[in-house]
Amino acid sequence: MNDIDDAGETARRLDRTHVFHSWSAQGDLAPMVVDHGRGTEVWDAGGRRYLDFSSQLVNLNVGHQHPRVVAAIQAQAGELATIAPAHAVRVRGEAARRISERAPEGFHKVFFTNGGADANENAIRMARLHTGRDKVLSAYRSYHGNTGAAVVATGDWRRVPNEYARGHVHFFGPYLYRSDFWATTPEQETERALHHLQRVIEAEGPGSIAAVLLETVVGTGGVLVPPPGYLAGVRALTERYGITLVLDEVMAGFGRTGSWFALEHHDVRPDLITFAKGVNSGYVPVGGVLLSDEIAATFEDRVFPGGLTYSGHPLAMASIVATLDAMAEEGIVENAARIGAQVLGPGLAALAEKHLVVGEVRGVGVFWALELVADRTTREPLAAPAVGALTTDLTRRGLLPFVAENRVHVVPPCVVTDAEVHEALEVYDAALTQIEKELHP
Amino acid sequence: MNDIDDAGETARRLDRTHVFHSWSAQGDLAPMVVDHGRGTEVWDAGGRRYLDFSSQLVNLNVGHQHPRVVAAIQAQAGELATIAPAHAVRVRGEAARRISERAPEGFHKVFFTNGGADANENAIRMARLHTGRDKVLSAYRSYHGNTGAAVVATGDWRRVPNEYARGHVHFFGPYLYRSDFWATTPEQETERALHHLQRVIEAEGPGSIAAVLLETVVGTGGVLVPPPGYLAGVRALTERYGITLVLDEVMAGFGRTGSWFALEHHDVRPDLITFAKGVNSGYVPVGGVLLSDEIAATFEDRVFPGGLTYSGHPLAMASIVATLDAMAEEGIVENAARIGAQVLGPGLAALAEKHLVVGEVRGVGVFWALELVADRTTREPLAAPAVGALTTDLTRRGLLPFVAENRVHVVPPCVVTDAEVHEALEVYDAALTQIEKELHP
Ligand SMILES: Cc1ncc(COP(=O)(O)O)c(C=O)c1O
Ligand SMILES: Cc1ncc(COP(=O)(O)O)c(C=O)c1O
Repeated sequence: MNDIDDAGETARRLDRTHVFHSWSAQGDLAPMVVDHGRGTEVWDAGGRRYLDFSSQLVNLNVGHQHPRVVAAIQAQAGELATIAPAHAVRVRGEAARRISERAPEGFHKVFFTNGGADANENAIRMARLHTGRDKVLSAYRSYHGNTGAAVVATGDWRRVPNEYARGHVHFFGPYLYRSDFWATTPEQETERALHHLQRVIEAEGPGSIAAVLLETVVGTGGVLVPPPGYLAGVRALTERYGITLVLDEVMAGFGRTGSWFALEHHDVRPDLITFAKGVNSGYVPVGGVLLSDEIAATFEDRVFPGGLTYSGHPLAMASIVATLDAMAEEGIVENAARIGAQVLGPGLAALAEKHLVVGEVRGVGVFWALELVADRTTREPLAAPAVGALTTDLTRRGLLPFVAENRVHVVPPCVVTDAEVHEALEVYDAALTQIEKELHP
Repeated sequence: MNDIDDAGETARRLDRTHVFHSWSAQGDLAPMVVDHGRGTEVWDAGGRRYLDFSSQLVNLNVGHQHPRVVAAIQAQAGELATIAPAHAVRVRGEAARRISERAPEGFHKVFFTNGGADANENAIRMARLHTGRDKVLSAYRSYHGNTGAAVVATGDWRRVPNEYARGHVHFFGPYLYRSDFWATTPEQETERALHHLQRVIEAEGPGSIAAVLLETVVGTGGVLVPPPGYLAGVRALTERYGITLVLDEVMAGFGRTGSWFALEHHDVRPDLITFAKGVNSGYVPVGGVLLSDEIAATFEDRVFPGGLTYSGHPLAMASIVATLDAMAEEGIVENAARIGAQVLGPGLAALAEKHLVVGEVRGVGVFWALELVADRTTREPLAAPAVGALTTDLTRRGLLPFVAENRVHVVPPCVVTDAEVHEALEVYDAALTQIEKELHP
């Protein structure tokens, strides 16, 4: 760890004494003490600068301390900081309207939550009540949140110690680099992944299935952009069987893929869309569900049995309005698309050419993964100690990385500049060179 | 509805078009359009003033727009609006320290969430992992939140359409006015309620029970202050069987009962305490779990499999620090205690004397319920249309009420003044007189 000042040391000590951390054993934590941030940059308590190529938890699409979003929060706090969901306030309607306008045709209503997990909880509830069915199908490679139903919908390891809800079934999604279907081309992967899903639906009993819940682009599970035709195929399957299609855009939505919603790339209209993170870059905790008119109609005369104290919280709403307006007016989504296509994508491809430890580069916009392997032929994942060493080295070189299993996710804010990308590419390059030296001295 | 101005009409229209509301059929909503608030007062878009005797959703303990909390949010927004949970920041430790200091001996760590529901989700997860057991016992008269496990832990009607998690069992808690145990005195109610809980524990199998989850004072379910000895008895029972005791202080905590935690009145040390609402008056969405040292120790070497993007969100943390400091320095908790004992409690008792429609008054601090009955002898609950008429009439008379089933919960901010209480008592008096006239013309 870096040297830190006295205030930093107090922060560190208070953290270790009183703050219980997510997804960790508490004994061995050594968190970085953060002082402040701006755009793609963060400074620690020792005054050291970092490039934030994590976007924190891939939520900081407009970067740190966007002046317009900060000002909107400050103004709203001064005006009306909080109000119950039952009342109407202008800013809540303005936020919901802006979100609806970015959605496909026929989406007008938004149910607001506090984050991504409870967005998925409520989408699952809507699908179950709309269909009168119980089961929810979701992918093994997925993360949908930490609450009761969301964590069981999650497919990755975080589900297993939490399996307390019933009616959840998991299937394999497309992932050509490590195909679960012995496929060798994208077309084959799509076709076989759809066949597999159809077999699971048939075997579970279509009449029992309320929803298929999918990340439009699988995020923490590996930045898996679905191959052409997959999502459209899932839509066709779910339609055939009267199953609700829920697309989780919590990580993929609002600029990350270079479009407002990731689904725009995939010619698919789901029944429900969940969102959080990018909608306001996480400046205030918020998430939500976008309802298609068909699902919304179900709850016109029938009570929707879900709710939460902070649904549509004014501070969150003000930050959404400012974020979406800033993104539109400052061309932030376009920047993410351009950076991905012209700077970050090609730069990462060049790193993969150069470094044998990179098995695959994949992604879109500012949503990329370097899949690291011990061996390019067997595709054996790079082992945890080497990944750990790389993580430490990247941080030491002044970059906040996002690391998941054997992958480095390259996920800067959507406002990242060409210069910052070039700087980061040099850091990745140096760190990959270093790890290769250690692996093959 | 009141006349509202053009801005108000826009707000209303946007709300009806785009905002999906909690716990409601969407077709028949006519939300009040709120313009601003201050302390115990709220103004609608027509410029009309109301006394907020709902505290919104019983969360606004320091009242609307407390200048110190607003300023803290504005300052934090300008400094560092958001940062991932994995990093350390001073304000998060300061918030966690202040919360720990108000807890019983032997509580040092706080896991932050976005609200009350996910606080309970994570407490349930901790109890299950700590004990290696599955079942969670909670009361039929209870509300614990809207997410997967929390809503199934909930006992009231909101559970039934949502019953998708397994391992949840419900029991009857003490409620002398409508005793489920044929009791006629508080002592008898305590003794029999404990006997009932013991029988449920025995019948479910003590070795299968991870937790008993209880609201310290049942909130939405009726402001049920447990009779003397009940909670201590539950503690003894859970201890005997190695069961984790989780006290839900989401609504009861941080001043509502005239003490920092409601459990202080009951001579009980639980294993986990969940909180939200009052901890920052809901100015920023937040909640959390306070862990006893014993439970915290479980996760020293073992991974805690829970987490969320906005755990320990800086804006929420700043609002907690400011709220708890303001409450301490301005004697806000003491005010709630004094108001309850000297002004609100006696005033409501006088209303009950005068109005036959009031079957029982109960409560403490600024946490009271008027239980309305069609008949004092049979205790038949006042029917829904009459309750609806009363609600409308209270609002018309300039008071925002909190109504649940056949009860009016009298739950102003902890900062409410004597004059405001007297004004409100007159409104309740007039509205009760009116409803009695309509019932017995
Ligand atoms: C795709 C996806 N869904 C849901 C969530 C859960 O969001 P939250 O942490 O706000 O509950 C996440 C968080 O990483 C996510 O990436
Ligand atoms: C006792 C209790 N627990 C939990 C909750 C859920 O809190 P939230 O609405 O923030 O999820 C509530 C909300 O009213 C509550 O009163």
